[in-house]
Order: sequence, then structure tokens, then C-alpha cells
Amino acid sequence: MNQYLKTDNWTLTEEGFTPENHMASESLFSLGNGHFGQRANFEESYSGESLQGSYVAGVYYPDKTRVGWWKNGYPEYFAKVLNSPNWTGIKVFINDEELDLAKCKLDEFKRVLDMKRGTLARSFVATLNNGIKVRVETERFISMADKNNAAISYSVTPLETSANIRFVPFIEGDVRNEDSNYGESFWTPLETYSDKQSASLVSKTNKLDFHCAYGFTYELLGAQAKPEGIATDSSAAIKLETKGDAGQTMTLLKYVSVLSSLNHKKDELITKANISAQTAKNTGYEALLEAHTKAWATTWQNCDIRIEGDAEAQQGIRFNIFHLHQTYTGDDPRLNIGPKGFTGEKYGGATYWDTEAYCVPFFLCTAPPSVTRQLLEYRYRQLDKAIENAEKLGFTNGAALYPMVTMNGEECHNEWEITFEEIHRNGAIAYAIHNYIRHTEDKSYLLDGGLEVLIGISRFWSQRIHWSEEKSAYVMLGVTGPNEYENNINNNWYTNRIARWCMIYTLSAIEEAKAINRDQCNKILAKLSFNSTTESSHWQSIIENLHFPFDEKRGVFLQQDGYLDKEQLIADELDSSQRPINQHWSWDRILRSCFIKQADTLQGIYAFEEEFDIETIRRNFDFYEPKTVHESSLSPCIHSILACRIGRTEKAYEMYLRTSRLDLDDYNCEVHEGLHITSMAGTWMSIVEGFGGKRIANDKLHIAPIIPQKWQAFEFKISYKNCLLNIRVDQASVKVEMSGDKEISIRIYEQDLTLKPGQIEDISVQAVV
Amino acid sequence: MNQYLKTDNWTLTEEGFTPENHMASESLFSLGNGHFGQRANFEESYSGESLQGSYVAGVYYPDKTRVGWWKNGYPEYFAKVLNSPNWTGIKVFINDEELDLAKCKLDEFKRVLDMKRGTLARSFVATLNNGIKVRVETERFISMADKNNAAISYSVTPLETSANIRFVPFIEGDVRNEDSNYGESFWTPLETYSDKQSASLVSKTNKLDFHCAYGFTYELLGAQAKPEGIATDSSAAIKLETKGDAGQTMTLLKYVSVLSSLNHKKDELITKANISAQTAKNTGYEALLEAHTKAWATTWQNCDIRIEGDAEAQQGIRFNIFHLHQTYTGDDPRLNIGPKGFTGEKYGGATYWDTEAYCVPFFLCTAPPSVTRQLLEYRYRQLDKAIENAEKLGFTNGAALYPMVTMNGEECHNEWEITFEEIHRNGAIAYAIHNYIRHTEDKSYLLDGGLEVLIGISRFWSQRIHWSEEKSAYVMLGVTGPNEYENNINNNWYTNRIARWCMIYTLSAIEEAKAINRDQCNKILAKLSFNSTTESSHWQSIIENLHFPFDEKRGVFLQQDGYLDKEQLIADELDSSQRPINQHWSWDRILRSCFIKQADTLQGIYAFEEEFDIETIRRNFDFYEPKTVHESSLSPCIHSILACRIGRTEKAYEMYLRTSRLDLDDYNCEVHEGLHITSMAGTWMSIVEGFGGKRIANDKLHIAPIIPQKWQAFEFKISYKNCLLNIRVDQASVKVEMSGDKEISIRIYEQDLTLKPGQIEDISVQAVV
Repeated sequence: MNQYLKTDNWTLTEEGFTPENHMASESLFSLGNGHFGQRANFEESYSGESLQGSYVAGVYYPDKTRVGWWKNGYPEYFAKVLNSPNWTGIKVFINDEELDLAKCKLDEFKRVLDMKRGTLARSFVATLNNGIKVRVETERFISMADKNNAAISYSVTPLETSANIRFVPFIEGDVRNEDSNYGESFWTPLETYSDKQSASLVSKTNKLDFHCAYGFTYELLGAQAKPEGIATDSSAAIKLETKGDAGQTMTLLKYVSVLSSLNHKKDELITKANISAQTAKNTGYEALLEAHTKAWATTWQNCDIRIEGDAEAQQGIRFNIFHLHQTYTGDDPRLNIGPKGFTGEKYGGATYWDTEAYCVPFFLCTAPPSVTRQLLEYRYRQLDKAIENAEKLGFTNGAALYPMVTMNGEECHNEWEITFEEIHRNGAIAYAIHNYIRHTEDKSYLLDGGLEVLIGISRFWSQRIHWSEEKSAYVMLGVTGPNEYENNINNNWYTNRIARWCMIYTLSAIEEAKAINRDQCNKILAKLSFNSTTESSHWQSIIENLHFPFDEKRGVFLQQDGYLDKEQLIADELDSSQRPINQHWSWDRILRSCFIKQADTLQGIYAFEEEFDIETIRRNFDFYEPKTVHESSLSPCIHSILACRIGRTEKAYEMYLRTSRLDLDDYNCEVHEGLHITSMAGTWMSIVEGFGGKRIANDKLHIAPIIPQKWQAFEFKISYKNCLLNIRVDQASVKVEMSGDKEISIRIYEQDLTLKPGQIEDISVQAVV
Repeated sequence: MNQYLKTDNWTLTEEGFTPENHMASESLFSLGNGHFGQRANFEESYSGESLQGSYVAGVYYPDKTRVGWWKNGYPEYFAKVLNSPNWTGIKVFINDEELDLAKCKLDEFKRVLDMKRGTLARSFVATLNNGIKVRVETERFISMADKNNAAISYSVTPLETSANIRFVPFIEGDVRNEDSNYGESFWTPLETYSDKQSASLVSKTNKLDFHCAYGFTYELLGAQAKPEGIATDSSAAIKLETKGDAGQTMTLLKYVSVLSSLNHKKDELITKANISAQTAKNTGYEALLEAHTKAWATTWQNCDIRIEGDAEAQQGIRFNIFHLHQTYTGDDPRLNIGPKGFTGEKYGGATYWDTEAYCVPFFLCTAPPSVTRQLLEYRYRQLDKAIENAEKLGFTNGAALYPMVTMNGEECHNEWEITFEEIHRNGAIAYAIHNYIRHTEDKSYLLDGGLEVLIGISRFWSQRIHWSEEKSAYVMLGVTGPNEYENNINNNWYTNRIARWCMIYTLSAIEEAKAINRDQCNKILAKLSFNSTTESSHWQSIIENLHFPFDEKRGVFLQQDGYLDKEQLIADELDSSQRPINQHWSWDRILRSCFIKQADTLQGIYAFEEEFDIETIRRNFDFYEPKTVHESSLSPCIHSILACRIGRTEKAYEMYLRTSRLDLDDYNCEVHEGLHITSMAGTWMSIVEGFGGKRIANDKLHIAPIIPQKWQAFEFKISYKNCLLNIRVDQASVKVEMSGDKEISIRIYEQDLTLKPGQIEDISVQAVV
């Protein structure tokens, strides 16, 4: 835990500079617009500890893997999110001494992330070793309105005497990934250019031949300077020598464009980068900023959550929503949501099951349906690779196993217990299709790819499961469930459950698709050589006879065969010096302990909650919650939601704070590496599905709010079937306001209502079950 | 499979040169003397594919590990057997063209390993590109009589015309490991020297500061030359220009010494190396060779096995015995037996459980007791590290977990499923103590270290095992058994069995030790803070209540909990294109299959055979043998022994050939990487314990031979309690001859006999059970 930021509803504020917190702040104050993003590295040179990080969506590097013993089926490479050329840099020299916050005296340091407007600002007074004192004020943003542009405002004011100021805005192509497996460089700069007005750089990745182009131009306000272009093999800069009197503020405005070969022809990149930067300058800083903040205002309008009476909780949820929308904007089906987004290198790869299990529920309710549909199409585009992946592992007949981590559909994780065994991910991908359709009513997606994905996934399950003579049941051996503190276990309840659900849903989806368009559906089935008789009946047989470990005595589902053989301990009774156990215990000890990294059986109960009565949920929660150490960021939100379901408001609130402030308060001492972007969607879920009690059942939206004692009120929005619902809950009542263009039926607690556009319903808050 | 060598009782002979076989031959024809060893690399330069390999016992390198995801408890380094400076090199120039077998025309190529004498010879006729034709004959040996020396005889005879011959014998210090994780160099040459008579080099390892010194001098026979010393920063050579007429043979004798800082002061190394080489020269090639072959004659006298009527089988067993004695001579408790000995780099580390489980039985019966005692002391010297290793994994109170792979007692393997979970190795280390004592009657070893090791090991088991409420029994979760095609399984029958045995044996060993010397024993127990009440009774409780998976229906022990849930398949029914499965199946598929890499449950039945009736052994053999794919070199010998036990002579013979000719016939297509040294002891076991039926039970040697149909006779020797027994078995009778200085009681089949020194017993061969 490390709490050094001020609590505020709309901002993060760091006052006073503590070098030990700088890397954490670089993560927390990151900016992005879905197309590129940037850690909160200082513009000027900084010789202290820092993780330089500038990322362009979809641009990655297949680094040579580093494994101990190679196993058959391992991927050839580990895809790395690429630290890309640095476009934020502005060197500042004051009377020839370079400004470096590690080397001067600092006063009045302040760093502010304004989440409402999407801007990062800094201000400080620096006294250099040459005795000159200056005030510096900076602001930057990465435009949400124009996805290729960013702008920086950098002001210097000599305070006591006049001073010569040299600004050197630049782009640097000689950049490295800190996590390069063999210390190799991933980039080769191809072209640099610089004149008095503009500078540009094109660099290509050493594998896969991605090209990125950077251009910038500038304005200098409050002073005159003789500009000079300086280009080296790997950088492009403009030197601006100026001089200011005491009290005279000189402001450099840097207009930057960032383009990649994902969206532009390689031979046009540099020209377009230059034009784009010039156009931005012509528009002007204030106008650019206005368009940007307007775009944020629109986003917030659809997704803001208000919490009254609890600033910590309020700041937490907005922080999470803000970063999610910075990471993914849903306008390109080639992109996805990396676990660290644009805030760090760790984990590599863009896409985990986090996307489907956590981010999809978030975007479904807070963004237009097209945003989620892009996420589904991402997987559809990679279906061929998922089939290839399954073939590598010995599966046939179009069985599809989606990778654990991927950029382009190929697996790029290489721990066998994850790559080969954590196969429940396949289930989440199917579930997301179901989730999309029940939220949007867009059943056409089944014919546009959904059915093919579902059949590939169900085929995988049907081959991965086999008949056990011993058990007289179907079984699934050798898996790793969501709880990665178990490996190579048999009959993981969650995996078996979601596998069975996939087959049930696929069979019903085939019928649904036929109902929409029988010919088209039959064409798809023919294309896949789907055998409606033998395949369906084999699936049906599995559906009816799959083994689910269960403990009669306790009436709980068992995480896996043999789980009860473990010593049954309680996480809270562990000595605090042993927590988190993954930093203190050897791996084997973790594996054979009963402790659970993240919701596993409870993840299944969460996913299929309508199938269980409240007592069953309670028994399982009471059995598993005390054994769960929540050492994955994906865990507390699920527990928070189930705690709400069974009326444990305090536990739910504790779990909510843990998920929403995981990064802000640095629970796991790792925020310097980047933020936990995907789990931020879980924070949103724990409010909307937890406290809000939002469900969809029998084709109807349900809400059943409960409110923590500490909160005066909370207010959230749900997009559902082209309507936007605003739900405000206080200690006494629930107010629901609907905007849309048609009636909608919903259920609040046990009450069915039909809402008309503009209608506001006011209902008393119920005691929880 | 690749059979290109001639079958012969005492030699390996390769006729004709096939470059594709060269690396395999480099392994197969390796030489060593327990202190250093050498692959059969050519002396002259060779530009074709080759694995240079020169190894000095005990000199290793802690290479930086290469892992995917770091796990708590992983070792810091992976110890590498070090490719050391090349001392065999002799460049040969003929009329200024360098002799290189990859670049000239070759006739009459022959390479011979004489296993009786321990020599490697080559002869060939080479026609160079300049048209000159020469006959070359070489011979070399690494002296078994003087552990610091080797000698090479290298003869060149111009055949049709006279020729200028330039010999350049050298030592090269710029050498690399092919398996270096990050391509780093491991050596820094410190000093080179060369004059007309001698040359030397000292090189040190870049970590751990091992120093190795190499000296050589020479004789030139049949010609005169003007010598010239040539030293570079990393090499020392002597240039010898000479000239020979057609038919004139010029012979270079190179006398080499190899010394290391393990045995000599660093500052004396180079002097000693020079003196040692000079002394060898003074002794002369023939006299050195005679002492060497005499040493081999003595070794063979104690350990030879003769097989009549089956040259393949005969060659196989001698090949195995030969390499084992080349690898380990038992005169230094700091040394051990690496899986590849001095024949390759692979696997790294010197010491696996192979030593105790396979090599100890071999050396116990074929070498003086002191040889095995050195192996036991090796582990005693590393007890502190084993305790530290266990502490890293959370164990306390002096619990000891020996590493899976080690050089100095520290773990240096880093796959979690092996390092942390393949803990049965601890049992083999205890078992070796028992084995040593029952063979030698040297119970004093208990007081000299044995008891401390046993208590450390039993303490580990008692902490690793816990009480399962669910099973009302003790259980051991999360292990990997000998069958590494299972990972992280529960209640591996073998591991549970050997763990229980360790505790039983330790408790009885404490009593034995007290009986020998109560005071000294009590001192040891006090030093270990052993609590005779609580610890003993806890162990006793585990002994009585440990869970062993068992299938009532089939009457077989189960490899682990849930083994029967697997699809029950037969290895022979797999398509041959799928074998070996480890080269064709993905790891997860292997893990969830029923296929067994190597004896596991059967390893336990082998170890504790006297506890099971013959029907139980048969049932288990018949259940597990068909599921075993023998993809470990350690597997077929155990199956061969048990097959003999239950009268399956043909199966036993098939398994015997597989183990004895594993490398000779390259069953697994990997002999180019080096030989399977430790499993060679298993080959010996499959004759002596398999066909010979040798056991020790109730403090008595039993033999109960059976003989394969194909064999006219076989004859083997057993050292037992300071006697040497020679046992000759033909199709009708067993002849036992004893040499020693006291009577000895043994049992042949069901007949108890007391043998006097020199006495020969002749007993009819029995039909097998």
C-alpha cells in the first residue's frame, strides 16, 4: 500500500516530488486515446529512475522466447508491447544548464491528472545549480477528437533574474524495451528530418516491419527565438534559443502527430505525419483542447458513476473508467485491450480472456454496441489461428482453442500450465457473444461470425473431454482454472461448467440462427462440415453426463477433484508477513495449499448465477471467500458482486475499495510497472452488478440495488437495447430515468415496470435478501 | 535408430567416414579417466559439423538461468558442465594445405574404440586438394594410471611422393559452450607459454574462479624438425616443420597434462602442468600406455560381464561398463556422475538421483566399497545446502531436500514441476545408504554422516505430508514422480512409498547406530535436536496411516489419485508416427494421457520387491508395462529386471537390448549430444539383478538366474562383503566361484549355501516362477 495522492472527485493530484513515487506516478498519470498512449514521463530530461513508455496500438514485437526446457507446442515468440519513439521530449536548458528534476532544487511541485478533461499538468519552481530559479508549467493531452494528434504546452518563467532559455523539442527513435528478453533493440529508425519549423521521424520494427511516423511543429509564445533544425540518425529536434526577463513567461506549444502503418501506406507516412502536425498547429492549442475535452464530456455522459459521501470510492471508480476509455475506443477490430494498456510493458500481448470476461460487460453498458462488436470481431478474425493452435495440440475437425495471450491470434505465452491448460479462456469468448446478444438484441452477429466461433469452441470442448470408465462420466483432465495457484488439475468445476454451457449455448444458437435465416445458417454449417446428428448428440451426451466435483457434506461445488484433501486453512489467519503469498512462498507450497489466487468456483457461480438458489451461493461464498487471497486484480470484483447478492454489504464494500483503488493505493506494490487496465472493468462491474444488482435474465434487465452505509447516494448509467438508463440510489429510494426512443420493460427488485422515454420511476430501496 | 558400427565383443569400429554420423561417433568414442574426459573430436582441424567437448571433473559454470516466468524459490543459476580448453589439437599441414577431413578425399577411414585397453585409434588415407596422398594413423588415451595425463600418437606417411609436413600441436583456450544461455564466454585465459620443447596455458572460469592448467611436450619420431613456439593470448602451440619421403612415417607423440585448482594451488598449477607433461615424456608413450591398460585390466577383472552367443548384447554391456568406469573412479567425494559424463554438455549439473538409484548398485558390486562411500559422502558434504534448500521452500527444523540437479549442493534446475515437486529423489538418497550398508556391512557410516542425512530426509517427508480430514489418512499432494509425464499429482504411489520407507529405515537406523555406539549416536541426535518422543511418534503415525492409491477391482497400486480417470490406452497401439510421444505430442496431451515415461509404480515395486508376492508384481507389471513408452533412458532396465522376476524372459531380453544399446543404436536420435552415462548402470542391473536374479534379503545375497534362449552362457561378478563372486550361467547350470578370505552364506534359487574361498558350486538352472 502506498497512498500519496490527494483524494478528489475528478483529479489525481501529487503535491511535492518524491523520486521513489515517480515511476508509480508515471503509470497512474498516463494518457491515451485508444490509438496511442504515453506514460507520464517528464518532457524534459530526467536522470532519476523512470520507465520510458510510449505505445502505439497494434504495433508489437515478436521477441525470442526465453524458456527453461522447451516443450512441444510452445510458441516461437513472446509478443511484446513496444516502447516506441519518444514524442514528448523537450530538453530545456537554462543559462546552458540542463533542467533535470533529479539535479535541481524543487519547490511547489504539483502534478495533476484531470480525468474529466483528459489532461495532464505539472507545475513547479526549480532552482538550478547555477542559481537561476524558474517556474515551469506544463500541460498535455492526447486528443480523443483526432486520434493522430497530441499537444504539449510547456511554459518557463524566470523568477528573479533574466535567463537564457533553450528549448529543444525532439522525437527520439533510439528507444528500448526494458523487458527485452535478450537485450536486443526492436527498432530501426529509417528517416529523420528537421528544419526550422518542423521535424519528423519514421522508424520501423526489426521484425514484422511495422512503420511508425512522428511529426511535430511548434509555436513559441512570449518570446522570439532563432530556430535551428537538428537531425541525427535516430532523432529529429529543433533548437530554440531565447531569453526572458524575470517574470516573463515563455511558452512552447508542441503539436505532435503519431501515425502507423496499420492505418496508412508506408510511403505516405512521413508526409501525412507532417501535414497532420501542421494542421494541428493551424487549428491551435486551445481549439484542439476544446475538441478533446468535448469528446471526453460525451464519453462521461454515457458512463460516469457518481458516489456521494465517499470521495475515495468516487475517485477510484472514475480513475478506472477514465483509463478504460483511454485504452480502447472500439473503432478498429484489429485492436484489443492489453492488461496494462498504454501504461507499461509487462505481460506483453494485447489480449487475454480479461477482455471478454471483464471488459465486454463494461463496454456493453457504457459505450455504443459497435464498440463491443469490434471486440467480438477481433476474435472472429483470429478464428483460423485458434483452429491452427488447436491442431498443434492434437485437435481436429475445426476445433478452436483461442490463445491465452495474443496479438495476431497466435499464442505467445509459454508456460505450459497456462498456454496448454488454462483453457477456460475459450469459454469466456463464447460467453461474450451471448452477453453481446442479450444486451443488444443484435442476433445477426451469429450469422456474421458468432456461430463459427461458437462451433469451433464447442468442438474443442467435445474433444478435450473424454469418457471415464472409472467415473462413468465425462471428465476433463489436466487443466488450470482461473485460480492460477492450481495447475494441471482434474475436473475444475468452473472449466467444466463453462465448457458444458458452451455446448448448450452453441446448440441453441444454431437454432436461433436458423430462425433468423435458415439458408444462411445452413451455409455456415455446411462450410464447417457440421454434422447435426453426430456432433449434436455427442455434445448432448457430454452435457448430460459431465462430472462436477461436489461435496455432499458441505453442499459446495469443489474447485477440482481432490480439493478437500488439502489442508483447509483461512487466509486471514496467515501471518501478515506471509502476504501476498506469491511473494513469500515457493511455488509448490502455493500449489498444494488451499489458497485461491482469484475467484474460480465463484467465477462460475457469478457467470451462471441464475442457475443457483441463494443458499447455494451463500454456502459456496462462505466456503471459498475465506480461502481467497485476491492476488489477482481480477478477483475482488467478483467477490464484491456475490457479496452484494447475498447481502454482505460490508464485505462487498471492502472488496470494492480493493478493486477500485488497487492501483491508486498500490495494494500489490507493482503500480510502477503499469496499471491493471482490464481489471478496472471489474471495478465498474462491482458497482453496477454488485451494488446496482444489474442482471439480465429472461431477456429482461433487472436491477436490485443495495447501498453501503457510508454512501449518501450513488448513480450509474446502463446502455441497454439502445436505451440509456440513469439509476440513482440513495439510502431510501431508487430513481430510474430512461432516455431512448421506445418503451422498455425492466424489473427493479421484484417489480416489473415498463419505462417510457424520459420517464422517471422512484422506488423504495429494499432490504437485501 | 542408427546402427553403423560393427558388432564386436571388445571394440566399437566405424569403417568409412559418414559426416552425418560424426557427432554421434564423437560421443560414442569418448574417453575419460574420472578426472577429465574428452569427446572423440579429431586432433586435426575439422570444418564439418562437430561438438567440441573437453571436460574437467568438478569444474563448472553457474550460467544465468533462462526462464519464462520466474517462480519464488527458483535457483539463481543453472550449472553448466564446462567445455574446457582443447588439449587434443594438432594442426597438420601437408605442402602447406591444412588437413581437414571435410575438405579432402578419404579412403580406408577407420575409427576404433578399444574398450579393453581404453584407447581410441583412427586410420585413413587422405588425398588432399593439392594431390598429395598421405596415410594417417592416430591413437590416444587418457591415463587411468596417472589421472593428470593423456597422450596422443599421430603418424603421417606420404604415400606416393615426398611431402612437407607441418605439425602444430596446440592447446586452445578460446572455447565456448554450445548451450550457453546468453552466448557468453565462460573462460578467461590467464597465461600462455610456448617454447621449442613445451607449451602451456592457464585459464580461469569467469565465475567461481576455477583455474585449469594444461601443459604439453612432445617427441617427433621418424623425422627431424626445427621447432618454434607460438603463443597467443589464448593458445599455446609448437610449430614443427618436417619433410618425409614417400613411405616414410613421421610420428608426433603429444604428452599432455591437465590439472585443476580443485587439486592444486593456483600459483603452482602451471609449473606442475609442465613438470607433469615432462615426466610423462620421460616415461615414454609405450610405458604410459602399458600402465594405463594394466589399470583397465584390473578394473575389468572386477566388473566384466561375458555373454556368449550374442555379440550385440556382449558389446552393449561392455560399452556401458566401460563408460561408467571412465566417468567415475571414486577417489574424490567432491565429484559425482553427470548424466552425460564427459561426453556432452546437455542437462548440466553433475548429480541427479540417477547416481543413487542406478550408479550406486553398480559400483557397490563392481568396485571397492570406498568408491560408493565417496558417493554417499558427496551427499553428506552437501547436507547443509539441502537443509537450506528445504528452508527456501518453507520447511523447518533441519528438514533436508536434496536438489534435483546440483554441482555444489545448490539446486540448479528451474522447472517448478521438477525442482519443487520431483521430490522422490530424496528417497533414493536414503535408500543408497541402506544399500551401501547391506552390501558392505559398513554400519559405521551411520555414525559418520549417514544418520544425519537420514534424519534430515525423514524430517522433510514428515513436514511435506499432512493429514487429510477428507481421507482420514496422511497424504502428499503436488508431486512429480519418476514418470515425468505427470506433474503436480497427488499421492504418487512411489513417492509415498519411498517416503514411508525412509521414516521406517531412519527409525531403525537410529537403533542400529545406538547399538554400535550409543554415546556417539546420542551426540548426533543432540546435535540435530532430535526429539525421540515427538518426532518418532509423528513419523510412526505417518507410517501407519499414509494413503496409498489402490484399485480393488484390478488389484493394482495406482500411480496417483485419479490415474484411472485417464483414457486407458496401450503404447503399442499408437501409430508409430506418434512415437516417441515427446517429439510428437504437445505437453498437455502427454500429461493427461495414461502413458508413462519411465518406471514409476514399477520403480517402487522394484525397490521394495520383497514386500510383494509374485502375483502382485505380475498384476502391476501387466497393468503398467503396456502403458510405458520408455522415453527415459532409466526405464527399460527396471522393466527388464521385473520381467525376469515374473518369468517374462522375452520381454526382459527386449528391454535389455533397448537399455544396453540405447546409445550404440541411438534409439532416441540424440546420441550426438552425448551418452546416457547414468542409465548405463541400469544396463548392468538388468543383467545382474534381472537375468542374474541378484538380491539382498535378510542380510543374505540371493541369486536366481534365468537365461535368454539366445545366449549360450553369461558370466558376471559381484563384490559382496569383501568377497568377489564369479557367476557363470549356461542353459543347464549355474556355477558360482568365490574368491575372498572368509566363508560367505548365499542363497541360489531356494538353496542356502556356504561358500568357502576358492570354492566352486554348480547348480542346475531352475525353471522360472
